[in-house]
Amino acid sequence: MPADHKTRLGTLVVVGPGLIGGSFALALKAAGHVQRVIGVGRRRATLDEAVRIGVIDEATTDLASVAGKADLVLLATPVGQMAPLMQTLAATLAPHAVVTDGGSTKGDVVAAARTNLGNVLARFVPAHPIAGAENSGPAAARSDLYVGKKVVVAATADSAPDAIACVEAAWRACGAELHRMSPERHDAIFAAVSHLPHLLSYALVHDLACRDDADEFFRYAASGFRDFTRIAASHPEMWRDICLANREALLREIERYQQELARLKHCLEEADGECLNAIFDVARTARRQWAEGQS
Amino acid sequence: MPADHKTRLGTLVVVGPGLIGGSFALALKAAGHVQRVIGVGRRRATLDEAVRIGVIDEATTDLASVAGKADLVLLATPVGQMAPLMQTLAATLAPHAVVTDGGSTKGDVVAAARTNLGNVLARFVPAHPIAGAENSGPAAARSDLYVGKKVVVAATADSAPDAIACVEAAWRACGAELHRMSPERHDAIFAAVSHLPHLLSYALVHDLACRDDADEFFRYAASGFRDFTRIAASHPEMWRDICLANREALLREIERYQQELARLKHCLEEADGECLNAIFDVARTARRQWAEGQS
Repeated sequence: MPADHKTRLGTLVVVGPGLIGGSFALALKAAGHVQRVIGVGRRRATLDEAVRIGVIDEATTDLASVAGKADLVLLATPVGQMAPLMQTLAATLAPHAVVTDGGSTKGDVVAAARTNLGNVLARFVPAHPIAGAENSGPAAARSDLYVGKKVVVAATADSAPDAIACVEAAWRACGAELHRMSPERHDAIFAAVSHLPHLLSYALVHDLACRDDADEFFRYAASGFRDFTRIAASHPEMWRDICLANREALLREIERYQQELARLKHCLEEADGECLNAIFDVARTARRQWAEGQS
Repeated sequence: MPADHKTRLGTLVVVGPGLIGGSFALALKAAGHVQRVIGVGRRRATLDEAVRIGVIDEATTDLASVAGKADLVLLATPVGQMAPLMQTLAATLAPHAVVTDGGSTKGDVVAAARTNLGNVLARFVPAHPIAGAENSGPAAARSDLYVGKKVVVAATADSAPDAIACVEAAWRACGAELHRMSPERHDAIFAAVSHLPHLLSYALVHDLACRDDADEFFRYAASGFRDFTRIAASHPEMWRDICLANREALLREIERYQQELARLKHCLEEADGECLNAIFDVARTARRQWAEGQS
């Protein structure tokens, strides 16, 4: 099929048809943007379920057997699993086909692509849909998951313009709001607004949980604690992987935060109420403005 | 009136009939635990409103003129305003009367009481109702605010047993769940589960807000950020006062947290995924257990 991205695509291959990949498939089918979706996964039972509930049309555990049919491939697996998948794509992808991913870090995906995609590197356009939900797996997929949600398209200097256009057209068809930035900028921003808060929340709960009298502390935790620590109930392996994947940017943010905390501690040591008030006030104003912009 | 705390009290004086004080008044009236409530405040308009909507029966701006009639006095003002109020009580309180407060820190209230309550110190029983709401002022008061909520009764070594019984009976009549601990223990626990999270949340938002490109960071903040920073929209002056009031315990908690954060940073520097995973996993398990215990 020619790469006219104004018209619909023939075959979408989704590697990992769970919440992220399955919702992409459902949205593109609902929009008439793709004709057929092939799901690729490791567990037959999950794939069968995905077919049964209509998230994908066909399924296989063998990417090599279907990659050649793809017009667009979405890698919606953990980044740690992408290297062999990319090697398979390097060997089997049709010349016009395009590859994208849905990972929440981009520098590591780009590094994996540079190592493994060989001469199809120009067909790769990294992306990050800013959408998640409590649940996972094919049954959690929804055709409207991305409606009005931000998707960062983090094309590299290697990404071909028509490949970028193809990925952006697909996300637009899902109803998403597109944002372009470099993989480096993406990782710097998400280190600050997502990865660091998760790490800080885990740190607080871990420190409490390790005390001999932890039960007494938790007994008096109330609504402020509940909100602050909600993200400390997130999946440990997933967040370990995100932290490691975005290690350098996250370390820079931790250092900034340590300086900020040291400043607050100093204000408190000096009983400098004016300084505390000024910091709290700037934060409150910014948080309120942010919340107003969200609604 | 004799101090038989099985029977109802005659006159309750609430200094500061806002959310905390007004709800205490409404709950005790609804339970038939008090006959009459006198509200004391600084602003006539607020007092008039409190009378009009039935939160209090009578109002005055002059505590000295009504303190002698009180069987129970609740100080529901900021701690910074308590010293002159306590001096007035020292000079006017009836021998059988009891004084309590609703402040969210206890060491500073006890210190103020030791300095200002003189020979009525034994009649003072500090307490902290763990209940708050978005709104404040008399109109926000509700007779059921304390139903099922924890109230920490933080009696001092000076508090007379019958005064403690009086305060506990009143909170029980409000439907609250009573917990006893020393003022020092109270402040240590709340430094960890409430005051520190507020400070950490303010710190994150302040650090972002001070960047030249803050807008771009805030643009990509999503639900994890929203939860983590909800408490950074709290009232700056109130939290400045709480931090200063509980300075020593909070400084100890900041130091612990700095060590915890340094440990996490070290794991990340070493790319030690096992260490990160172990910390996140302990936190996730503890957070989930806590949430289950709450529901």
